[in-house]
Amino acid sequence: MKFNNYQTLKQIAQLINAEYIGDDNFEILGINEIHVVEKGDIVFVDHPKYYDKALNSAATVILINKKVPCPVGKALLISDDPFRDFNKITNHFNPFIAAKVSISNSARIGENTIIQPNVFIGNNVSIGQNCVIHPNVTIYDNSVIGNNVTIHANTVLGADAFYYKNRSEGFDKLISGGRVVLEDNVDLGASCTIDKGVSGDTTIGKGTKIDNQVHIGHDTKIGKKCLIASQTGIAGCVIIEDEVTIWGQVGTNSGITIGKGAVILGQTGVTKSVLGGKSYFGTPVSESREKLKEMAEIKRFLKSRKNS
Amino acid sequence: MKFNNYQTLKQIAQLINAEYIGDDNFEILGINEIHVVEKGDIVFVDHPKYYDKALNSAATVILINKKVPCPVGKALLISDDPFRDFNKITNHFNPFIAAKVSISNSARIGENTIIQPNVFIGNNVSIGQNCVIHPNVTIYDNSVIGNNVTIHANTVLGADAFYYKNRSEGFDKLISGGRVVLEDNVDLGASCTIDKGVSGDTTIGKGTKIDNQVHIGHDTKIGKKCLIASQTGIAGCVIIEDEVTIWGQVGTNSGITIGKGAVILGQTGVTKSVLGGKSYFGTPVSESREKLKEMAEIKRFLKSRKNS
Amino acid sequence: MKFNNYQTLKQIAQLINAEYIGDDNFEILGINEIHVVEKGDIVFVDHPKYYDKALNSAATVILINKKVPCPVGKALLISDDPFRDFNKITNHFNPFIAAKVSISNSARIGENTIIQPNVFIGNNVSIGQNCVIHPNVTIYDNSVIGNNVTIHANTVLGADAFYYKNRSEGFDKLISGGRVVLEDNVDLGASCTIDKGVSGDTTIGKGTKIDNQVHIGHDTKIGKKCLIASQTGIAGCVIIEDEVTIWGQVGTNSGITIGKGAVILGQTGVTKSVLGGKSYFGTPVSESREKLKEMAEIKRFLKSRKNS
Repeated sequence: MKFNNYQTLKQIAQLINAEYIGDDNFEILGINEIHVVEKGDIVFVDHPKYYDKALNSAATVILINKKVPCPVGKALLISDDPFRDFNKITNHFNPFIAAKVSISNSARIGENTIIQPNVFIGNNVSIGQNCVIHPNVTIYDNSVIGNNVTIHANTVLGADAFYYKNRSEGFDKLISGGRVVLEDNVDLGASCTIDKGVSGDTTIGKGTKIDNQVHIGHDTKIGKKCLIASQTGIAGCVIIEDEVTIWGQVGTNSGITIGKGAVILGQTGVTKSVLGGKSYFGTPVSESREKLKEMAEIKRFLKSRKNS
Repeated sequence: MKFNNYQTLKQIAQLINAEYIGDDNFEILGINEIHVVEKGDIVFVDHPKYYDKALNSAATVILINKKVPCPVGKALLISDDPFRDFNKITNHFNPFIAAKVSISNSARIGENTIIQPNVFIGNNVSIGQNCVIHPNVTIYDNSVIGNNVTIHANTVLGADAFYYKNRSEGFDKLISGGRVVLEDNVDLGASCTIDKGVSGDTTIGKGTKIDNQVHIGHDTKIGKKCLIASQTGIAGCVIIEDEVTIWGQVGTNSGITIGKGAVILGQTGVTKSVLGGKSYFGTPVSESREKLKEMAEIKRFLKSRKNS
Repeated sequence: MKFNNYQTLKQIAQLINAEYIGDDNFEILGINEIHVVEKGDIVFVDHPKYYDKALNSAATVILINKKVPCPVGKALLISDDPFRDFNKITNHFNPFIAAKVSISNSARIGENTIIQPNVFIGNNVSIGQNCVIHPNVTIYDNSVIGNNVTIHANTVLGADAFYYKNRSEGFDKLISGGRVVLEDNVDLGASCTIDKGVSGDTTIGKGTKIDNQVHIGHDTKIGKKCLIASQTGIAGCVIIEDEVTIWGQVGTNSGITIGKGAVILGQTGVTKSVLGGKSYFGTPVSESREKLKEMAEIKRFLKSRKNS
């Protein structure tokens, strides 16, 4: 999430009432989660195990719960609860505003785009030209939709990431300040759910076609010209490269990568990253040729045993 | 389902035109299905195999298709079709009333609760304080929602149980007269479906967080501080104890129990009750350590065979 | 898809600007995809591998990308791109028209049918008597619904088939001109998606009951008195005969047949056609007795190996 205008280190420190190390006027451009952080961004870290990763990341400002030496050219915000203060910053720059109407006045809708009845379109949504948005679709604030996009009925773009911190008093939600981005020529089936990014974008690449009841988690990047069949669930922070084909009821772990042109057979659980250009099957995932051979060998062995 | 005021045995017998054994003024407090029946309730039974179970249950009145000896302190309603007459009673005390408006005038909505556009809220629904109900959500009659609850877009609370009697002329539906109850601090993702109880409540415990496209069946009780990931389906009459974690695309049989603190890995089919404090994987369900060891042993054996 | 009035070969040829072989006044009744084509219909074929199948099908007119000998009693339309021209014909006779209201004035709704708030009903939809359509349901154009049908909240009838041609410049969608047909006494749960046929009907037979979050693909025929549990996905062009029971989270390949009275256990992947009257389990699919025996044998073998 980028701020509309840059903020100074001092301004952010005052907002969250934190000590800081760095110049008062140190410029901050946005706030992001560790998976997607960029230069100019704040990142947060609250566990010693991840201090080094955060301090050495692309982040320029580290919101941290210990006074550590400040890396050269960076700044620190010292907080007793970085998670809480990360949420405070997100909420300040991207507050949830209740809708007054079904289609926000701040939504920008391109020429020849058809919005069917009972659709909800939130604040600052942008929709390109020649799109069809079918009935009962929900599009949360800040979503970005390209040209020639079709979204079938009852699909939801931009619900919150499923991302909680386990505290003794209950789960504490990381507030999602990111967006959903659909590039040109994307088709989405009915009753899909595409979650917004925690701080970055969840992106569906140009020309990708998605069937009904598919779930796509937060901050996931899906490439161009992919096909994803019905009832597949892609977890958060996944990278799917171009021209991947995924059949029905597939699931994935979070944070994995599926290489270019891979084919994932139905009901597979993609438990780890897989290379492109091959076909995969089973849970845990294997190359489909190997998995099917293994299954045939077992059957053969059991039969031979019975006959002997 | 409890009646608003107690009914007498004679009143109920007249309603369904049934013979009865017991005092005219015998007090009846409600009507419930065998899984959840309580003292003061009517239960129904129409198969000799289950007569004893019904007669010895907590139920005070047994709606039955045979004249049997009446247990002490209880009463009997004799019917040629207890299923039909159970439906007649449910319908009489909890009739379906067509909605005139999107948000019923009888709904009670707490302070600081935000209802986004295109939401449907049925009769006698109660929603607490500081909730957010996102667009295109459907909340059926009589649902009860606590404080600080978030429900994402297009989720459905309170559709009917999937519960049919197979008759020669077609399936006959058991009419659902129960409710959905969400306790405080529950979050529900987008496009979830939580069915109402047949006669009792389907309950999601305090602080439990549920991801997108999750299905929860009728009369299921989910404990406090559980996490349930996307596209999981929990059948009817299931008990999930506190602090259970369920990953994506898990399914369960009906009527089972998942013990406190259990972890169910992705795509598992929970085919029987499992103890708390352990991790489970596979269909049929096994402890995940055992299942993964078994899979590794098979691979090793096939490899050794090939090499020999 | 049948035309409202018959068309002549010459009229269709002019519409798509194609050469033709056959009499100018040759009568054409409709247009259909190869799986469901009938006498009087146009079918298209654009790959030499399928020429014979198309030429020998029930179709009366073959839209083809090569001048081949015309079968007796049939006609040919010669096109450089039959897929494009098939779409052109579908669009001409069944154009997508943006809705002006939530319930189309051309919809026919029977007596005693209740339409709850926030429902969308498209053009030329027909709904019988004594139905209940719950809130936020979406019913696309031309759907046909019988009597005594219940559709729970947020279900979608008639979204497009997931059917694309892979062209170098991107996926090209086959435009769906078919319908969804629900026969009498069908119940659909919440958040289901039933796709329309590409050119024929997707049909749910009399008295069939379907649970929440079920997906049914295009041109699939489901028989009478079937039960389909939650989160099952049936692919396109599937035939499910009468009185089939399918438990939760089952998936199927496209084009297969499930025989009368078969039972498919939870999470099964029906990878090929299966005979009626038996029970099935696993992915790839096996008879459940065999599959469970095989699993037990493997466990026994591994145990015996460890003990020896």
